[in-house]
Amino acid sequence: MGSAAASPPPSGKVSQDELKRVAAHRAVEFVEPGMTLGLGTGSTAAHALDRLGDLLRAGALPGVAGVPTSLKTELHAARVGIPLLPLDAASGARIRLSIDGADEVDPDLNLVKGRGGSLLREKMIEGAGERFVVIVDESKLVPRLGCTGAVPVEVIPFGAPHTLGLVRKVFDGLPGFHARLRTVVDGDLGSAPFVTDNGNYIVEMFFEDGIRGDLQDISDRLLRITGVVEHGMFLGMATTVIVANKDGTVTFLHRKSKLI
Amino acid sequence: MGSAAASPPPSGKVSQDELKRVAAHRAVEFVEPGMTLGLGTGSTAAHALDRLGDLLRAGALPGVAGVPTSLKTELHAARVGIPLLPLDAASGARIRLSIDGADEVDPDLNLVKGRGGSLLREKMIEGAGERFVVIVDESKLVPRLGCTGAVPVEVIPFGAPHTLGLVRKVFDGLPGFHARLRTVVDGDLGSAPFVTDNGNYIVEMFFEDGIRGDLQDISDRLLRITGVVEHGMFLGMATTVIVANKDGTVTFLHRKSKLI
Repeated sequence: MGSAAASPPPSGKVSQDELKRVAAHRAVEFVEPGMTLGLGTGSTAAHALDRLGDLLRAGALPGVAGVPTSLKTELHAARVGIPLLPLDAASGARIRLSIDGADEVDPDLNLVKGRGGSLLREKMIEGAGERFVVIVDESKLVPRLGCTGAVPVEVIPFGAPHTLGLVRKVFDGLPGFHARLRTVVDGDLGSAPFVTDNGNYIVEMFFEDGIRGDLQDISDRLLRITGVVEHGMFLGMATTVIVANKDGTVTFLHRKSKLI
Repeated sequence: MGSAAASPPPSGKVSQDELKRVAAHRAVEFVEPGMTLGLGTGSTAAHALDRLGDLLRAGALPGVAGVPTSLKTELHAARVGIPLLPLDAASGARIRLSIDGADEVDPDLNLVKGRGGSLLREKMIEGAGERFVVIVDESKLVPRLGCTGAVPVEVIPFGAPHTLGLVRKVFDGLPGFHARLRTVVDGDLGSAPFVTDNGNYIVEMFFEDGIRGDLQDISDRLLRITGVVEHGMFLGMATTVIVANKDGTVTFLHRKSKLI
């Protein structure tokens, strides 16, 4: 597979978008002919889609197909010529590799995702595959999840203020913690709840200094709340993180004994 | 509070609806002036609504208001004159008592609910209150949950066949277990997925001889599946179960050290 695009760009000033592109191209090097892929959403994943399209058109990746994590990705992938599959039991079992960006990556390769408002479909598809390659620039590496911004929680609209109260209770008394319903400006009407692609709302959790404690236990406590659909902590899912450094180099972080 | 309606009916043939009515009236005896109530859905809960309406109109329960678990209950409650509150953080914290029916009750007073297709709103409201009084006829008492029919699981429509596959994996290899997407006949189009009042689908799980094992662990494993919103096992929620026996008598089952 071509690797020219993955070589370090000329030293000096490198734009963040160039960094993302370099890392995305390195991620696509993991793709092999015949693979079914989970296709992520966002500006970094978009570079991977473009690269995949180029390679497919060049005949380098016969038999590759993708399962898109959003309508936006579906449209983008179709435009660049990536054959698409819906997520069903058959395609889910066949997803060999997913490629996506992330909002935060901790030292154990746990992620925060979904600050853009999409997390459920990504979690379904990226959790279904064997390998999950994450692309970030180095600003996304954090000592603890929740250090740099919101951790989203997708909730059912019915009773959302009540559910918000129960989410707050999980972190009761934690200094600096707060949570709110994500809103959007709705013309003359003021603000309205942000609505996900599944018709749900988002609760945003903010931590003064990141989430301390057993993340799996915190995950279970959130998921046990009736009204909570999913949250944006992706625990133990990423197998490789490709970090685009400011100096134009790329670092690979691998989880434990995984294959890549 | 009047108790005439709660006395045993004349011996002999007693219709199932009469049994439900007797038990529902006994449940309403737990209601005190000023209480905010969770109002259940279904034929048994409907008797409780009628009784509450009678008592309110007679001036016996000043200050009582209800949080309805469905649109059907909202309309019924409004018709019989029960003041209504929406579920929000304030009303959720104030719910003193909920009254509802159930599909199954096990010896620990764990329940299966939602065979009618509604479980999420009931679980939110009935889980918010201090006390939860369940009304059933004796045919609903089971040695294990899942003995007499489906255990429903509410799932996001996106990727539902994939989610169904993951639900099946939780009980992989269990003899007699099967699961399917609940459908409804949709005119000339054949069958279509059943849609809940939250716009989701229902996976129905069937067990040959009920669910064996640690129910809380099984609950966590189901809730960890991305795409699962909630399930119809109500664990540790009921505080009292009022059983209407075929002979017209009523039995009270209480959970542990609860107040009632």
